Amino acid sequence: MTQPSLPFVRLLPKTKPQAIRHGFPWVYANELVLDRRTKALAPGSLAVLQDADRRDLALVTVNPASRIAARVLDRDPAALLDETWLRGRLNRALSMRAALYDAPYYRLIHAEADGLPGVVIDRFGDVAVVQPNAAWAEAHLDILVQALVAETGVDCVIKNGTGRARGLEGLPEEMAVVHGRAPDGPVPVPMNGATYMADLMGGQKTGLFYDQRPNHAFVAGLSRGARVLDVFSHVGGFSLAALAGGAASALAVDGSAPALDLARAGAEAGGMADRFDTRQGDAFEVLAALAEDGATFDVVICDPPAFAPSKKALEAGLRAYERIARMAAPLVSEGGFLTLCSCSHAADLKRFRDASARGIGKAGRRGPLIHTGFAGPDHPQLPQLAESGYLKSLVFRL
Amino acid sequence: MTQPSLPFVRLLPKTKPQAIRHGFPWVYANELVLDRRTKALAPGSLAVLQDADRRDLALVTVNPASRIAARVLDRDPAALLDETWLRGRLNRALSMRAALYDAPYYRLIHAEADGLPGVVIDRFGDVAVVQPNAAWAEAHLDILVQALVAETGVDCVIKNGTGRARGLEGLPEEMAVVHGRAPDGPVPVPMNGATYMADLMGGQKTGLFYDQRPNHAFVAGLSRGARVLDVFSHVGGFSLAALAGGAASALAVDGSAPALDLARAGAEAGGMADRFDTRQGDAFEVLAALAEDGATFDVVICDPPAFAPSKKALEAGLRAYERIARMAAPLVSEGGFLTLCSCSHAADLKRFRDASARGIGKAGRRGPLIHTGFAGPDHPQLPQLAESGYLKSLVFRL
Repeated sequence: MTQPSLPFVRLLPKTKPQAIRHGFPWVYANELVLDRRTKALAPGSLAVLQDADRRDLALVTVNPASRIAARVLDRDPAALLDETWLRGRLNRALSMRAALYDAPYYRLIHAEADGLPGVVIDRFGDVAVVQPNAAWAEAHLDILVQALVAETGVDCVIKNGTGRARGLEGLPEEMAVVHGRAPDGPVPVPMNGATYMADLMGGQKTGLFYDQRPNHAFVAGLSRGARVLDVFSHVGGFSLAALAGGAASALAVDGSAPALDLARAGAEAGGMADRFDTRQGDAFEVLAALAEDGATFDVVICDPPAFAPSKKALEAGLRAYERIARMAAPLVSEGGFLTLCSCSHAADLKRFRDASARGIGKAGRRGPLIHTGFAGPDHPQLPQLAESGYLKSLVFRL
Repeated sequence: MTQPSLPFVRLLPKTKPQAIRHGFPWVYANELVLDRRTKALAPGSLAVLQDADRRDLALVTVNPASRIAARVLDRDPAALLDETWLRGRLNRALSMRAALYDAPYYRLIHAEADGLPGVVIDRFGDVAVVQPNAAWAEAHLDILVQALVAETGVDCVIKNGTGRARGLEGLPEEMAVVHGRAPDGPVPVPMNGATYMADLMGGQKTGLFYDQRPNHAFVAGLSRGARVLDVFSHVGGFSLAALAGGAASALAVDGSAPALDLARAGAEAGGMADRFDTRQGDAFEVLAALAEDGATFDVVICDPPAFAPSKKALEAGLRAYERIARMAAPLVSEGGFLTLCSCSHAADLKRFRDASARGIGKAGRRGPLIHTGFAGPDHPQLPQLAESGYLKSLVFRL
């Protein structure tokens, strides 16, 4: 199969092609000639990117309506985007995960850093969940799924089309089984010695995130014999790992009843239900109520949703992170550990750390930072984009 | 015992006392009234720090000749610096390490963050090595050693007085056994499943550093079946951990013959000498020679000494880091892993990452960053000083 002759898109004369040559994966709208012909390209169109001197630079996918107007698919402008090409990318990603993990439970494709812009694939044993968050991937979903099944041998592929990025690409919301048969109910996922239950058809609210795995492990290592409080617990990420690490007890707090149901199911599957408790409610209210009761814990974790999802929301977000720290610190026993997490791109490491330390200080507590952790290695980053690493986990000893 | 009446030192009117109240541990020379009386204080003198309104703020130790003119010992100005006080600090540090580690091999005291400014204590089972890098600690060494023996039960304490900071404090170079009897030869240290040999009387060149432990563990997790090259290996930090993690072979390169002797002794103690090889020589020359031979490895680690120990040395240091990356990248097999480390305060994470990525790019290679690691949790940091965390380990997949 030869690739049909492709349109080209061209860098503006002021735009240096070096960044692309050195592996930067994006061309911004203000770096590209956006003439009528280019603007008419459908989102997700393939094209050959040229420099201002008409030299071919790369095979790209174009979205004239996006701030990121072109994304590099292959630095070989003549590359043919077919199942073989996709299998190459998947195989490369798979061999890294095989080196890293004993069992096939991980993020298999982390978008640009795994060579598939805008595509996320999570693997849960024999089930894979694909998020085609870019139009090119939606258009090539059939061969992507074929390639995925061929490379991994999974017997079920679920398409999760609920990501926010899809709106920008003009793609509809959708959740569907695109290969095989959906699993009967939640899928058990082994991680850090615990068992988690993942409801893969339930969408973001009740899926499972692999990114905190190394930070779960770090906290589990502190938790032998400890009383643990896991706030914004989702399906029990930190608390089940802590119980597997020998915690005396764990209390998971979340606003979502379905998430807590899955957390309890995980605790039962791991034979640790007798040490596990849950409380549904607003995290701030539960923190206040626990303080009111004079409760203390040896290990407290707060892993809230993104309080600063954008630069505009940064100041309010940092205040929310400070407030969480201020409300959580009094619940930590003397000599205990406080873990504070942020998944906000906009709040960089320094700002988040400062807000956290300020909150702890305002609670009249203090103590050194003993761990700064990021997302695990199945969430690779291009070095050029690493500054914006979204996930930060800080562990303080109070 | 009551503390003899102490002199006071006073903040300049422009200096806000909030930083001290919020836990900042230092007063800079340009923040302090340096009158004749204060200048006459011997380095290491205890004093009560006051704000400009003569309110007592903290018990401090003073060094009028240093850029850091006063360091906070206790935020209680009436605290009595005696053996009981020292035992309190040691006990608090010890309880954290006991939660973190199965065996007593760790940094026990990491200076300011463990409440003992300028003091470093490493523990190797029944032996402790104390670095009193501040004059107050030198002056109180007797009760510090008594407190250390009482809290930990170690039967030998070695004083390592070779740190660079001692010169600034007017302290002489010295290496001595200050309690018990020196161990007969190198001490075996279990870490990450490997055995390391630490020559505790040999000084910096052949001691053992605990700071890279979590990064050793990460690389070991990538090394099953791999051919590993460990450049600037010292006593085998990365290579022995990789062998314990199942590496097929490891080659350690270092300029120090005694360090390589200890690395070989460690490999023998761990029963992995048959998979271990060493090469003594200049790292840059060995890298060039290996490239000349067309050698490749699945996992390559470069953990050089601080190339950018000061701001003045920053540009030259970053060029050296880039050069290391450029020379090491060609030795990494396709799909293999390159670990690059920096222990330079002056080269912050972003600068070091950029220099590394540039070097990899100039070698014609590229790949995502899968791990960013810092020093382990037995090297805690005050949040106010965390920006200057010196140790960075980056793992790239090429």
